[in-house]
Amino acid sequence: MTPAAQLKPALDAMAQAVDSRFDRMLPVPSDPRRRLVEAMRYAAMGGGKRMRPLLCVAACDLFHVDKERALRVAIAAESVHVYSLIHDDLPCMDDDDQRRGKPTTHLAFDEATAVLAGDALQAFAYEVLADPATHEDAAVRADLCLELARASGTSGMAAGQMMDLMAEEGGFDLNLTTRLQQLKTGALIGFAVEAGAIMGKASASARTKLRGYAHDLGLAFQIADDLLDVEGDASALGKAAGKDAAQGKATFVSLLGVHRARSQAGMLIDQAIDHLHGFGAEADLLRAVARFAIARDH
Amino acid sequence: MTPAAQLKPALDAMAQAVDSRFDRMLPVPSDPRRRLVEAMRYAAMGGGKRMRPLLCVAACDLFHVDKERALRVAIAAESVHVYSLIHDDLPCMDDDDQRRGKPTTHLAFDEATAVLAGDALQAFAYEVLADPATHEDAAVRADLCLELARASGTSGMAAGQMMDLMAEEGGFDLNLTTRLQQLKTGALIGFAVEAGAIMGKASASARTKLRGYAHDLGLAFQIADDLLDVEGDASALGKAAGKDAAQGKATFVSLLGVHRARSQAGMLIDQAIDHLHGFGAEADLLRAVARFAIARDH
Repeated sequence: MTPAAQLKPALDAMAQAVDSRFDRMLPVPSDPRRRLVEAMRYAAMGGGKRMRPLLCVAACDLFHVDKERALRVAIAAESVHVYSLIHDDLPCMDDDDQRRGKPTTHLAFDEATAVLAGDALQAFAYEVLADPATHEDAAVRADLCLELARASGTSGMAAGQMMDLMAEEGGFDLNLTTRLQQLKTGALIGFAVEAGAIMGKASASARTKLRGYAHDLGLAFQIADDLLDVEGDASALGKAAGKDAAQGKATFVSLLGVHRARSQAGMLIDQAIDHLHGFGAEADLLRAVARFAIARDH
Repeated sequence: MTPAAQLKPALDAMAQAVDSRFDRMLPVPSDPRRRLVEAMRYAAMGGGKRMRPLLCVAACDLFHVDKERALRVAIAAESVHVYSLIHDDLPCMDDDDQRRGKPTTHLAFDEATAVLAGDALQAFAYEVLADPATHEDAAVRADLCLELARASGTSGMAAGQMMDLMAEEGGFDLNLTTRLQQLKTGALIGFAVEAGAIMGKASASARTKLRGYAHDLGLAFQIADDLLDVEGDASALGKAAGKDAAQGKATFVSLLGVHRARSQAGMLIDQAIDHLHGFGAEADLLRAVARFAIARDH
């Protein structure tokens, strides 16, 4: 069985779980706030690979975290991811018109609503994490908030987005491109995985292992994205292909070539799986996600 | 002495304290993230009344909270306020070119950088609140994160901004306008004040009193803003005057008229001060802020 076929049931189940949780946690109000929540739901529901939620729940499973609580953290991580996609797609940023196979939020609604929907999804993530329903121990909730903020602010995702904008001006070598991607996508993937260790009050050594896994996985995931951007098919991707190259941005593929990029991704996945040494069968889902990361078509 | 003259030393000291904390807490990195942090600093430093920080520190003072810790919470509240101003000023929102007496962030930098600077300031607020340096008790840190998220998301500021956009289409009566303003500005003012009770582990009854104070103050503050928008002078305001009326938005002044709006604001301030009954001289600063709210020229 291919890694994609192997992971499909888990991804499908997660897609359904995530949609049902967003549906329940973001009810549409019957006043003029309605449009804001509708835009949040439009962007958050019915699409996406749900890799971050799957990683988060799989990491929580290692430590026998209650499934509903794990899903709350998964929803928080996905909310931040979705907010970043909404803002990233804006005309002043990447100016994309397709995302997850449908019109981007600013086209389906309008730009102002898209900005606000992203802003509100960021706040929503902390509203979910800091709520006692997520964990009875306030130290866990505070730690989750701290790690998410670090993963998404000036030392995480937003910083990576900024570097991505600067990258259009050229001059990014392999080091800077690696740093950019670690911040832009790696940091939030790292949060999703590490959150399992936080929720499970895991030992420092288990937390370090998961951090290593997430680090290598995140980078491999991005290299695979760059390969798909060159070789992929827009209908499978749900967004335009060939975009990075057209913008003249350095990518792992433009820097390494297709062949070396692919072997680098393979090495990183082996390394990611090595970090899980010491965990038994309970880490098989994380291993499967790693293999899937470089074997997908979207 | 007028309320403005009475409060001036406290406002000046707070302006200096806030600027020095932002300067220390947002150091400029020497890599391509530089532009992001520079935009955050540009928007956050050197301007603004710093009403939210002053309210926050004054409320913390009631419960003898350590000054440096109180200032951290004040910085978090102000960061969220500043992020909302950056996004609110964007061309797709209010399209403003002046803020706090200087060009808006998207003009001084560019739109994409402004979007990201706002996003990163929101994350920064939680990074500050969830840090153990803010309070040794994790329950306090988690509670602060929860209350800030509630005050700024779908049941707070972002919802108010959305209603504000809808208000341009007209049809907002006094009830809806009051609700809009409670969400748009009242919720974050409420957080700034209530944070004092959270930091000081105040009794439920003290927390309720402060919530009442903030509620009435926030509304009075907005009515005063609407009065200034009609009667004010752009150079004192640091932004364009007469804007709301030009956009055809309902304001407290358009709904009530200048005379009734002013008396309504005065009544609310009396009510706000009444909520502080039971506190002694340690609440004098909060009382002075309330009186200043309706007696300022910017």
